[in-house]
Amino acid sequence: MRLTVDNINQHIVAAKYAVRGELAVKSEEYRAKIAAGDAADLPFEHVISANIGNPQQLDQKPLTFFRQVASILENPQLLQSEEALVQHLGYKTDVIERAKWLLSKVGSVGAYSASTGVPAIRESVAKFIERRDGFPADPSKIYLSAGASSGVNTLLHTICANPNTGILIPIPQYPLYTATLALLNAKAVPYLLDESKNWGTDLEIIRASYDKAVEEGTDVRCIVIINPGNPTGASLPEEDIRAVLEFANEKNLVVMADEVYQTNVFVGKFHSFKAVLRRLQEENPGKFDGLELASLHSISKGMVGECGHRGGYFELVNFDPEVEANIYKFISIMLCSPVIGQCIVELMVNPPKEGEPSYELYQKEYNGIFEGLRERATALHKAFAEMEGVECAAPQGSMYLFPTITLPEKAAEAAAAEGRKPDEFYCMRLLEATGICVVPGAGFGQKEGTLHFRTTFLAPGTEWVGSIVKFHQEFLDKYR
Amino acid sequence: MRLTVDNINQHIVAAKYAVRGELAVKSEEYRAKIAAGDAADLPFEHVISANIGNPQQLDQKPLTFFRQVASILENPQLLQSEEALVQHLGYKTDVIERAKWLLSKVGSVGAYSASTGVPAIRESVAKFIERRDGFPADPSKIYLSAGASSGVNTLLHTICANPNTGILIPIPQYPLYTATLALLNAKAVPYLLDESKNWGTDLEIIRASYDKAVEEGTDVRCIVIINPGNPTGASLPEEDIRAVLEFANEKNLVVMADEVYQTNVFVGKFHSFKAVLRRLQEENPGKFDGLELASLHSISKGMVGECGHRGGYFELVNFDPEVEANIYKFISIMLCSPVIGQCIVELMVNPPKEGEPSYELYQKEYNGIFEGLRERATALHKAFAEMEGVECAAPQGSMYLFPTITLPEKAAEAAAAEGRKPDEFYCMRLLEATGICVVPGAGFGQKEGTLHFRTTFLAPGTEWVGSIVKFHQEFLDKYR
Repeated sequence: MRLTVDNINQHIVAAKYAVRGELAVKSEEYRAKIAAGDAADLPFEHVISANIGNPQQLDQKPLTFFRQVASILENPQLLQSEEALVQHLGYKTDVIERAKWLLSKVGSVGAYSASTGVPAIRESVAKFIERRDGFPADPSKIYLSAGASSGVNTLLHTICANPNTGILIPIPQYPLYTATLALLNAKAVPYLLDESKNWGTDLEIIRASYDKAVEEGTDVRCIVIINPGNPTGASLPEEDIRAVLEFANEKNLVVMADEVYQTNVFVGKFHSFKAVLRRLQEENPGKFDGLELASLHSISKGMVGECGHRGGYFELVNFDPEVEANIYKFISIMLCSPVIGQCIVELMVNPPKEGEPSYELYQKEYNGIFEGLRERATALHKAFAEMEGVECAAPQGSMYLFPTITLPEKAAEAAAAEGRKPDEFYCMRLLEATGICVVPGAGFGQKEGTLHFRTTFLAPGTEWVGSIVKFHQEFLDKYR
Repeated sequence: MRLTVDNINQHIVAAKYAVRGELAVKSEEYRAKIAAGDAADLPFEHVISANIGNPQQLDQKPLTFFRQVASILENPQLLQSEEALVQHLGYKTDVIERAKWLLSKVGSVGAYSASTGVPAIRESVAKFIERRDGFPADPSKIYLSAGASSGVNTLLHTICANPNTGILIPIPQYPLYTATLALLNAKAVPYLLDESKNWGTDLEIIRASYDKAVEEGTDVRCIVIINPGNPTGASLPEEDIRAVLEFANEKNLVVMADEVYQTNVFVGKFHSFKAVLRRLQEENPGKFDGLELASLHSISKGMVGECGHRGGYFELVNFDPEVEANIYKFISIMLCSPVIGQCIVELMVNPPKEGEPSYELYQKEYNGIFEGLRERATALHKAFAEMEGVECAAPQGSMYLFPTITLPEKAAEAAAAEGRKPDEFYCMRLLEATGICVVPGAGFGQKEGTLHFRTTFLAPGTEWVGSIVKFHQEFLDKYR
């Protein structure tokens, strides 16, 4: 019997991943049409991919120091002409020193590394965490991964023991979580974030979700928190994090902290789960010593934005050594994460320091990207504030806004006639009219009766923001 | 309840992956000890990692053309100083042209690509397959992957529908297959390769394995072939491939052809499953039109040896479009394979051509690596031929030899006393005595009552071969 959609793995068939779903595919078709000069019938000249946090596809330039080092790692023969690098190609001496140091630790970037990553890079990550948090970190508990996605995949694979395993997942969420749980045939236990409080966590809601799942017989083992939030853009205050840790400790839940947007914070300060846990441990000797925490980071986001290099790490706190041995084995089967991506992790956690030759340019580029993101977030938020039937929390962090949209009843009817949810229908029309690709709220989960879409604020310029405003008004006029 | 080895995913606990198992971990401990200058008590000065096909960890240098192009892809600012690249750094003009072309197709290597890979690179792969096979290839059926391992993972995830799904796997095999099937809770249906015929496939054995599995109620859906063989080093003649395709067609099995060693062939010629299938189709119009074939390739092996870059692809022939849509979705969840690895796939399938400025050096490096591998394979084979109780087929292909070893009864008793299989015991003593890490045959599967180990022939020099000979004699003397 040939493979058909009915006889292959039904967990893949059941999984949903809207970020690269129908809308994204259609937008790529438009892009190809435009590239082929075959776009006379389209009402727009460019496709704007606001569906995915992919900074370097849009305006964001890579950080010069990172890419200069990477160029030497790819071609160490360049070191035979150091003078030419410095005099003719503008490489600073600290670029050359760092490349030499990495090569001495990595060997060739074309060789497999140890399964968990190059030991010296894991040490750099541990030192970074120590500086960030003010508490020690153990390099042997750092696992380098192919982006944070691969780390999430590893951790969920490990924790999900059977179809009855439940994982508390924020709603709205980045769909990697529900998609992976669908593949693993485990249960997502959704807890709603509180839109009225800037999409913060509400412990009463979490507790109610947990209790309901346990009542139904689900074996809830872990709580996922995404901070800063995706798709919400929320940046959690320390008290929310404390409350989650208290609750996880009470219920013996593994805490999985997705902290890939930790440098994309516009309001307040980023608090890592690890630091808050350590503070709780200091304040309450012994009480939290059984709590298991996994926190994830990535080179794909922040001012680094090196998605295509697939680099990241996760740190494990307080995991059982036999469990870690099985995590090691799971990772080993795929051999290792991309080694040049591992090197970029090292550069991210150990960038040029004040006084070093590359510092000034690095700082200028880094701040320029940060300010650019903030400006675009603010401009987009301002546009949303002026749109009829659109409400949107002020941008706090990450790369996204997630406005609520209120659509006329006739639009919902037209959507139903097409077999779509109203927000999917809205986003499809937006793409067709403007070339702008966003993701409907349905792709992340949303409170029943509400509609949203997620857009990145990475695209340059303001013209596209104007296109959204214009489309929205026309859409309302049509279906009113 | 905290995570313990008893309550996590038991399919991970059950999976076995010896290539990076206890011996590999111990060898890394030795390596760290030596690096720390703390090796006075060790009877050797170096660790030789002959356990894994990792060419650039050992003697193999990266191909200059590939890495020069990659250095520009990492730092496109180098193109602002083309003259300096050519005059001071020895870059040829075709390096610069290729880098420009790739950048025009890829954008930044720091951006996510389309889930299945950069379209222009998929087109290059299709053209390569056409040149190799003499039959057309469709770029839309090429999926770029993070090494072949990731492709195998995708395909097995798709095919394995439930615990009753069976996949025919050669024994001995590369343990990625059995490990992934263990994770998926599906059934490996082993078929023995025929050591007496240079580890070729024997259709009667395959048929008997299939029949037995079907009798037991297993839903056999796919047959895996590794050609050239890992760990066996076999290079299949065309008639073996034809027989497998005939059988798969008869039984409606998906054929998964792992062809990552396709350029590591010392004896005869590599025949791709795709080309042989197309020939069968020409000879038998209509008969094979329902046969599904997936063939995999990688940048990790051959003369390229870029394991650390995690690049590869698979080509699908005759898969149902709805099944392909689900494969696309599965891949999308992990976003895309490393983009610089995708670029190296492009260089592998489209290397410098005769008459182009980089051709001469490329050809010299390529041939040098090929000849070096052949020489070392031959030297190692010669040593094995002279060792008492060791039998080894002549090297035909891939990067491995897989000798049979006959050990004294007392050695088996000593192994049992340690709770080890005899070949594991032998390999552990070899590592402790010489620093040479090989993988016991038990890690790949072997015919009952036989013992083997797998060694790569990548390590430079002949001293380590002498160490194996010396150890073996002492081992025999001790347990005789």
